[in-house]
Amino acid sequence: MKRIILLRHGQSLWNLENRFTGWTDVELSEQGREEARRAGRLIKDAGLIPEYYFTSYLRRAIHTLQIAAEEMELDWVPVLKDWHLNERHYGALQGLNKADTAVKYGEEQVRMWRRSFDVLPPLLTPDDERYPGNDLRYASLTNDELPLSESLQDTIARVRCCWEERIVPALQAHDTVLVAAHGNSLRGLAMMLQHLTAEEIMSVEIPTGRPWVFEVDDRMNVLKQYYL
Amino acid sequence: MKRIILLRHGQSLWNLENRFTGWTDVELSEQGREEARRAGRLIKDAGLIPEYYFTSYLRRAIHTLQIAAEEMELDWVPVLKDWHLNERHYGALQGLNKADTAVKYGEEQVRMWRRSFDVLPPLLTPDDERYPGNDLRYASLTNDELPLSESLQDTIARVRCCWEERIVPALQAHDTVLVAAHGNSLRGLAMMLQHLTAEEIMSVEIPTGRPWVFEVDDRMNVLKQYYL
Repeated sequence: MKRIILLRHGQSLWNLENRFTGWTDVELSEQGREEARRAGRLIKDAGLIPEYYFTSYLRRAIHTLQIAAEEMELDWVPVLKDWHLNERHYGALQGLNKADTAVKYGEEQVRMWRRSFDVLPPLLTPDDERYPGNDLRYASLTNDELPLSESLQDTIARVRCCWEERIVPALQAHDTVLVAAHGNSLRGLAMMLQHLTAEEIMSVEIPTGRPWVFEVDDRMNVLKQYYL
Repeated sequence: MKRIILLRHGQSLWNLENRFTGWTDVELSEQGREEARRAGRLIKDAGLIPEYYFTSYLRRAIHTLQIAAEEMELDWVPVLKDWHLNERHYGALQGLNKADTAVKYGEEQVRMWRRSFDVLPPLLTPDDERYPGNDLRYASLTNDELPLSESLQDTIARVRCCWEERIVPALQAHDTVLVAAHGNSLRGLAMMLQHLTAEEIMSVEIPTGRPWVFEVDDRMNVLKQYYL
């Protein structure tokens, strides 16, 4: 029996400001740091010992992992940072206040962008400073990989690359792995683990800072799942 | 031209208490954390952008790296944690107060243990809780790799494995790499980079929290070296 633990990062400074974040590299708030400490304690108290860590390229997830690892006294465990685990890219909405956006575009439109499976938020243009092609950390990505905006479907499609090429092999080599990431990238992993439909995954709300444990067999069939 | 930046961790809680540390997993002091922040700022202000990080299995080095990375805004850079970069193992001296040890064994003996190239401090026994074979994180090491104690020569011999198999390949793939580690493991890297003799390396004292930059050519010949 193997275990994969999903951990959604806690509150960031832009959650506080009610802004669309996406790939913007916003820091955790003090409450978010406390959520990460608590998550580490929960994993430790449950007697779980991750042997491999995954996280995204965004500091709110990276720091959540580092803080939880410190709390578990498992700082030395290997980590793979992978941009495929980034939050959904919100295109030209990134940085905008959610309430202002609802006033500007109408609540129904914003609800569609946020809650549909395959609708794209407004695209960035490549000359926008928010375009990932202008950020050093994404220098190795191809043009096809660099998003101008993403639907939830797009996000889950790239999460699948990390799942198949990185996480499943790590689970074959180790008993327990921990993935510290974002609401929508973790939805992608939950969708693959539980074989959910688009409809089903959209109704899944993953709480922040609550380790979500999946016990799986060697073929990644879920035997049991629970929150700590 | 390639660059390797060596960074020795700052003050730990046991430095404050004047105890032999070695592989004991002691935390940074607040001064040590400030040294790490300053190191990150120095690297950033010099315009250097590490593309790959190395550190040890010990949290004082791992946290030094994490704090410096946060300061550089380069949290997302890949990291390899490698026990070969751990501090020298001080055997049965680990945990002892240095002044008490000098009283017990004599100053000359302690000086020999600390300052000679090939003299071993007193060995641990495998039933000692300080023996690395009793620590989960070293579970994958062979008996030959698990130290009961180390001379500086032993430490440098294992650092060489990391240098040849990990760091040189990373330097061939990237322009700039950063190694956050310990006084004696960094001595090993400096010895290999500068082709120093045993006599010469023993007189090298690497300051804490001061990034030491080596500019090298593709064959790892040092073109220039300087502290930031």
